[in-house]
Amino acid sequence: MIADKMVNFVKNSSAIRAMFEEGKIMAEKYGAENVYDFSLGNPNVPAPAEVKDAIIDILDNEDPVVVHGYMNNSGYEDVRAAIAGSLNRKFGTAFREENILMTVGAAGGMNVIFKTLLNPGDEVMVFAPYFGEYRSYAANYDGVLVEVSPDTETFQPNLEEFRGKITRRTKAVIVNSPNNPTGVVYSEDTIHKLADILREKQKEFGTEIYLISDEPYRELAYDGVQVPYLTKYYENTIVGYSYSKSLSLPGERIGYLVIPDEVADSRDVIAAANVANRILGYVNAPSLMQKVVARCLDAEVDVPAYNKNREALYGGLKKLGFQCIKPEGAFYLFVKSPVADEKVFCDAAKKHHILIVPGSSFACPGYVRIAYCVSYETIMNSMPGFEALAKEFL
Amino acid sequence: MIADKMVNFVKNSSAIRAMFEEGKIMAEKYGAENVYDFSLGNPNVPAPAEVKDAIIDILDNEDPVVVHGYMNNSGYEDVRAAIAGSLNRKFGTAFREENILMTVGAAGGMNVIFKTLLNPGDEVMVFAPYFGEYRSYAANYDGVLVEVSPDTETFQPNLEEFRGKITRRTKAVIVNSPNNPTGVVYSEDTIHKLADILREKQKEFGTEIYLISDEPYRELAYDGVQVPYLTKYYENTIVGYSYSKSLSLPGERIGYLVIPDEVADSRDVIAAANVANRILGYVNAPSLMQKVVARCLDAEVDVPAYNKNREALYGGLKKLGFQCIKPEGAFYLFVKSPVADEKVFCDAAKKHHILIVPGSSFACPGYVRIAYCVSYETIMNSMPGFEALAKEFL
Repeated sequence: MIADKMVNFVKNSSAIRAMFEEGKIMAEKYGAENVYDFSLGNPNVPAPAEVKDAIIDILDNEDPVVVHGYMNNSGYEDVRAAIAGSLNRKFGTAFREENILMTVGAAGGMNVIFKTLLNPGDEVMVFAPYFGEYRSYAANYDGVLVEVSPDTETFQPNLEEFRGKITRRTKAVIVNSPNNPTGVVYSEDTIHKLADILREKQKEFGTEIYLISDEPYRELAYDGVQVPYLTKYYENTIVGYSYSKSLSLPGERIGYLVIPDEVADSRDVIAAANVANRILGYVNAPSLMQKVVARCLDAEVDVPAYNKNREALYGGLKKLGFQCIKPEGAFYLFVKSPVADEKVFCDAAKKHHILIVPGSSFACPGYVRIAYCVSYETIMNSMPGFEALAKEFL
Repeated sequence: MIADKMVNFVKNSSAIRAMFEEGKIMAEKYGAENVYDFSLGNPNVPAPAEVKDAIIDILDNEDPVVVHGYMNNSGYEDVRAAIAGSLNRKFGTAFREENILMTVGAAGGMNVIFKTLLNPGDEVMVFAPYFGEYRSYAANYDGVLVEVSPDTETFQPNLEEFRGKITRRTKAVIVNSPNNPTGVVYSEDTIHKLADILREKQKEFGTEIYLISDEPYRELAYDGVQVPYLTKYYENTIVGYSYSKSLSLPGERIGYLVIPDEVADSRDVIAAANVANRILGYVNAPSLMQKVVARCLDAEVDVPAYNKNREALYGGLKKLGFQCIKPEGAFYLFVKSPVADEKVFCDAAKKHHILIVPGSSFACPGYVRIAYCVSYETIMNSMPGFEALAKEFL
């Protein structure tokens, strides 16, 4: 009796989520300390102390009717102004409260902007490997995902293929940097070239093509690498942000969209996104958490802890002979599978209680994603398992 | 550049929300105490003390990585089990954790269940007057809303017309009791008859028709009136609940769906709803608030305060000569407009700084909705304005 569309969605239901559930079952069976669950991007680093302090201060000093109440569907005005101001200080932008729309995480923001922009059949371009949920988000509004195949040398976008695949129906292009699943940060050079191609194609087709920058991993960058702020490179850029990783609040569903004035028809887009946020049933982003993040704009999670994991896992796997690009951001390692069918490798890993996700979940078979947002001990204790896998496969 | 569908959505954007924004502007201009804003169902009664206590206790005693982290897309298992147990104690049902899906408010729940059930062109029946957002929620999944016209004598569902309008394409029927906008509670007799009609029509057409009980106002009932729990009357019932009103947490976006085992294809529906919750971008209901509501299952807002408002406003308006059915639940009064075009009346009210919503927003022109989830003083101070309106129109 369920909807036809849902039958396939359920069948192809997220392998990542399935593994997360499997990991919990294995943890019960073998003991949590004996399961090395690298499957989900669920931060193990706690929220910074500022979050708890902010919650308690708000509850002690603000009116509960306001704190827990409805507000403008786009969010509290003061929260949006505070975020705009913070972005302006960090990136030299000139956003106002009106350019910020508080959302139910970045996933909520992506749905809001696709609902706002997509007509059935409109094309949404993605660079493989990419977060598999983009496919569902576009499909929710009958958008058609167009994949650009991966450049497995650098995992920067394959720009020549990109140029060739843009059509009159291209309505949006998703960029996700630092990238899930590779950890790669798209370079400033990449962004300049990508923006030039988009401008050229807009002119050729007389269309507007929106660049959607999905950047929940912005603050997780290592070795001093700079993550370009895309609104400064291309006019039609809309940013989707989440505090899931930067404040370790993934379950709280709090993020925002930035819709700059430079975006084509920005007033209409802003107005429609406000309505989309409401009618999609989000209504508004969770109210208390809106107020919390506004007080934690300069708070940081323990990024060095992730970096320590990155070095240990990357170093350990390289030493064992695995091939992998060194990630500059996020908390993922994208490792070449030693066998062509990476699912075989994932199944073998499971026998060592190591849970990793097949690259085909990210439209990049032959690789596996290892999420290192786990304890340092988990990484160290998983090494004998990886060593056994190296002996078996390499 | 926005999506074609959104053009109309923006144009017909919620009159209620527009008035909420207008009210804020008027409050700045004339002073909040001189504006009588009855436009939005935004509770003025604060959350019970248990909510703050629960938040602080959770933050003090639970692991922040768990409290703010991802969990099963359907919600924390212990929270769902606690809610199932509470429902079972209250209503003699036999729900298990698996039957409960935590949602981003009732609006999120309605979207999840429509995404789960509706094929394009499927019909969703509603009884006028009804909450206008239902139209958007069904349209999000290309469902077609079929209205049953109001019985303005009792504001109970017009069951004869209902029977005649059910077709092979009828996939769902929405019931909202205590009702927004009338405050009427659908009687047990009504529910029995409605269930009989549904069973008869299921048999006639060989279809399954899901009854969606949207009941955010369940706990707001007066004079000891009983609100029937619909899963006990009709097998294919799915309940959408929200803590927006019962705990005064509308901005927090926390609620749940109940999908009983008795529902046709319940396993598939439960599995698909879990996926729909994820891919619609909710991912999961806000995590901290899930844990909070599980600790506040027996907490109550100050319902007597609403009752005092109800008596004062109902009594006051009747005395002035207005016609209105006495509401048994929720916090709305649905008053007959003294002129056929109720928008004329709403505009006249605005001159007295009284903000009320035209009945046409609820598919019931000729009436106005007055939300009395305001301070008692607001009601008292608005009375001279209503008196002037009575003199002008009655």
